[in-house]
Amino acid sequence: MTSSPLITQLIESLRCLPGVGPKSAQRMAYHLLERDRDGARRLAETLTTAAEQVGHCARCRTFTEAEICGICSDERRDASLLCVVESPADVQALEGAINYRGLYFVLMGHLSPLDGIGPEDIGLDRLVERFDGGDIHEIILATNPTVEGEATSHYIGELARERGIRATRLAHGIPLGGELEFVDGTTLSHAFLGRQSIE
Amino acid sequence: MTSSPLITQLIESLRCLPGVGPKSAQRMAYHLLERDRDGARRLAETLTTAAEQVGHCARCRTFTEAEICGICSDERRDASLLCVVESPADVQALEGAINYRGLYFVLMGHLSPLDGIGPEDIGLDRLVERFDGGDIHEIILATNPTVEGEATSHYIGELARERGIRATRLAHGIPLGGELEFVDGTTLSHAFLGRQSIE
Ligand SMILES: [Zn+2]
Ligand SMILES: [Zn+2]
Repeated sequence: MTSSPLITQLIESLRCLPGVGPKSAQRMAYHLLERDRDGARRLAETLTTAAEQVGHCARCRTFTEAEICGICSDERRDASLLCVVESPADVQALEGAINYRGLYFVLMGHLSPLDGIGPEDIGLDRLVERFDGGDIHEIILATNPTVEGEATSHYIGELARERGIRATRLAHGIPLGGELEFVDGTTLSHAFLGRQSIE
Repeated sequence: MTSSPLITQLIESLRCLPGVGPKSAQRMAYHLLERDRDGARRLAETLTTAAEQVGHCARCRTFTEAEICGICSDERRDASLLCVVESPADVQALEGAINYRGLYFVLMGHLSPLDGIGPEDIGLDRLVERFDGGDIHEIILATNPTVEGEATSHYIGELARERGIRATRLAHGIPLGGELEFVDGTTLSHAFLGRQSIE
């Protein structure tokens, strides 16, 4: 349908971007070729570099190209507070919305026994080591407000309380059934301040 | 603001895509890193290859990685009809919308004396050579319905009629002030069928 197999291929591969349908992929391809080949080359480079080099922080498991991420290695942050989230995008959403000065732990998912995803797959062995390290006084559970997210938080909350660590959960106010990274900043901030102890 | 300079850079370079603001660039970056690194690598490859290899058809100036594009080299198409458009995206829009079997000529812009863009910059020397070749019986002027597009069509129409070639313009029905590539198929099809002689 196009005059060039390469353009057809480019349109096809732009579809890997979330929210990009055939029409916008076509618009993007022609825009880049007509007006911004330098932008296209730069994008190709950063895509390759990021896909190769972005790994996980040895301490909190979020994305980083370093051994330890910028947040974990920032000594001004409060190491007695640990916020547990499902994904690096959630760290991003919280950092952008609230004035939180503690640290994070990123599960890279949630418990899902039916899919064979157990505690070790979401790094809970490492999280327990940190609990036992003695620095942490409170964990703030900020998994997604879905059935699996709630179950995961409940499970981690138990692990914390068995070790005498206070476990809190983001206040309701976060719409149920959604995904944390798409919640607006005001709601997030509200939910964070109103966090409650898990009994 | 992110835990990784590489991710910040990736988000920044995704902004070269039209219609992608800071929020969606961030969403795209995390989506690719969390769920589709293969897609990211494939996209990087096609971006590089397309940016390097897609050039212009020697006959119609549209985008192609070949010497002559697929449309110009298709012998089943009617070489007596030539549709003149501003950009390769316009060829794409017309091919997708109407059952046109003639050929194209792509100006890669429009006349714009104030910006120093004259007839040779939009390939009119080559277009006149094709007029003089004797194959063409009708040119269909399908530049954008903007002031510059109309002026360009008027200029090309004169060149054609001086050589005894019929010049038609897409019928009104195309919304004024817009860009051809964003016009819906039905409107395009209607305008194409209702094209009129330029007097
Ligand atoms: Zn970290
Ligand atoms: Zn061609």
